[in-house]
Amino acid sequence: MKINRFVENPLITPDDVKPYHQGFEVIGAFNAGVAFYKGETLLLLRVAERPISETPNIIKVPLLKNGELTLLEIERDDPRYDFSDPRIIHEVGSEADFIYLTSLSYIRIARSRDGHRFTIDESPFLYPFNEFQNFGIEDARCTQIGDENYYINFTSVSEMGIIESLVKTTDFESFEDMGNIFLPDNKDILIFPEKINNRYYALSRPVSSSLDRKDIWISKSSDLKAWGEHRHLLNTSKDDWDNGRVGGGLVPIRTEKGWLEIYHGATKNNVYCMGALLLDLDDPTKVLAKSKAPLMMPEMPYEKEGFFGEVVFACGGIVNGDKLTLYYGVADRSMAACELSISEILSQLESELE
Amino acid sequence: MKINRFVENPLITPDDVKPYHQGFEVIGAFNAGVAFYKGETLLLLRVAERPISETPNIIKVPLLKNGELTLLEIERDDPRYDFSDPRIIHEVGSEADFIYLTSLSYIRIARSRDGHRFTIDESPFLYPFNEFQNFGIEDARCTQIGDENYYINFTSVSEMGIIESLVKTTDFESFEDMGNIFLPDNKDILIFPEKINNRYYALSRPVSSSLDRKDIWISKSSDLKAWGEHRHLLNTSKDDWDNGRVGGGLVPIRTEKGWLEIYHGATKNNVYCMGALLLDLDDPTKVLAKSKAPLMMPEMPYEKEGFFGEVVFACGGIVNGDKLTLYYGVADRSMAACELSISEILSQLESELE
Repeated sequence: MKINRFVENPLITPDDVKPYHQGFEVIGAFNAGVAFYKGETLLLLRVAERPISETPNIIKVPLLKNGELTLLEIERDDPRYDFSDPRIIHEVGSEADFIYLTSLSYIRIARSRDGHRFTIDESPFLYPFNEFQNFGIEDARCTQIGDENYYINFTSVSEMGIIESLVKTTDFESFEDMGNIFLPDNKDILIFPEKINNRYYALSRPVSSSLDRKDIWISKSSDLKAWGEHRHLLNTSKDDWDNGRVGGGLVPIRTEKGWLEIYHGATKNNVYCMGALLLDLDDPTKVLAKSKAPLMMPEMPYEKEGFFGEVVFACGGIVNGDKLTLYYGVADRSMAACELSISEILSQLESELE
Repeated sequence: MKINRFVENPLITPDDVKPYHQGFEVIGAFNAGVAFYKGETLLLLRVAERPISETPNIIKVPLLKNGELTLLEIERDDPRYDFSDPRIIHEVGSEADFIYLTSLSYIRIARSRDGHRFTIDESPFLYPFNEFQNFGIEDARCTQIGDENYYINFTSVSEMGIIESLVKTTDFESFEDMGNIFLPDNKDILIFPEKINNRYYALSRPVSSSLDRKDIWISKSSDLKAWGEHRHLLNTSKDDWDNGRVGGGLVPIRTEKGWLEIYHGATKNNVYCMGALLLDLDDPTKVLAKSKAPLMMPEMPYEKEGFFGEVVFACGGIVNGDKLTLYYGVADRSMAACELSISEILSQLESELE
């Protein structure tokens, strides 16, 4: 697979983003959903900000409550907590993966005419606006349906769990809240860009803790707000690049061969790669083909080293004829981009079938 | 709270049920959904059958695949497996709670004119009919909407996870499949018996493994098949009878004071009790009151001892004026029943508010 990484990579780093909160530092500008709006490429950046601690032994935890931001101070040698994963604070002995996140994420827009040089908005576009988002909002995906309507779904995190929420915008300034669309724990929702046989479709990645599954499912809707007729779509593999978890990446792309889904897979050791999935045009619950080898894996220094290394994680792209420009988060820290040929991806999927 | 347990209790035990599968024994007839149909009380029994093993050291595991029942044989001293919970087989070292169930559950109807003496159908009403049900179907609930339509939801278990499925019947002989209505892991779905402000509502009990939550949520629908606008409804308590998990029990009952939901709570040690919840009539996402003490807890020998002891677990009831006849599973083994006064439950909820 020929991957033309942009020479400007990384395109956007935390250093390019001015903190929105006083006394905070930006530690991530990554995992952006992508929209094309009025001649501009918009990156719906996940900006992660962390309170600056004056004392090395104190970690400050950002928490929202009734829209108010508060800081909780925890001592790093407090034996009740485990700080080994930089993204989270784990309570020792708890069954929960985490009790707090170490940063607060929200969605901020970066805009570009040429798709290479971006200007970042001064303030957030989507900032946590209800109690389901008290720990932050993450990893937006944007589906354009028709000429004017853009649907943005994102992960809402709070002490109640990890769920998926949906808003609609026509101008990327204001938005209409369409509610929580998937129950805990779920993330990586990708809404298809058109109705198929009069129904909307979406991919999602629910977690079955009972059976230890992190697979992709597919669901149907009449109104984008309520989802049902859920079916299992894709397993993790047994011993391959996607044996730890799989999840949707980009909004599915209509091609002659089928719906092309660029998705992520991670090993049990959290190396995140991108692969491809081909779904039947008339019935996307049918998988026609799946990448045996990843399309793309962490290779460049900015992909291998960062806040949480060995991660390429695309949430959006721009299609122009055969050219797919993939905008992808790297190492839970920055944004990068690359170009791929859609026909080449389809050929590889076909060749692997033989 | 005055609880009049039936003198006939337990009403139905495994000994009353003829196995459907040759070479199997019935080990449970419990957790029945309840319907009133053509003058009869119907119990939609969860019947659990286990393959009889001729050799004490061999455990036989029932598995469905493409509708075919197969038996897997595992040696009890196989160090790869843990058999300490009689309901499941755990794979040592796995993050999953279980790899197999020790019995296969399906739904079979028991019918009664007087609500006390039941005749059990010879064959199943709902038997696993798709790949999401390869480990069995469990814990039906039945919501009558209008005069003729009965909607039955139940838990579908397979290697893909624990999900909730829905069928519709008008005759309790045939049914229409309405698909999977909630993604893994979810169970204890209770559909309200009428639309409220033109929307259907349902309770559910999704699992957040990330945050270790087993709480009740509430969702909306236009067609009963697709659900959205999810909101959190009820936490587990901190240190009380329901500190381990909570989940809906009966179809919510319309009263003058609000929607009365009889739900279950369990301690972290798996003692299952029943409590009451009162929800706003016009907006059931609002909790008006909740039992401080359980309405009912395991007290009788048939409630305390069984396949999995210390469990009262009601999935349905019959309302007649102020009288609520609760049909409830006991010790994951049998069915029992009792009568409660609805006004007394409401008074207790009110008194606890003061």
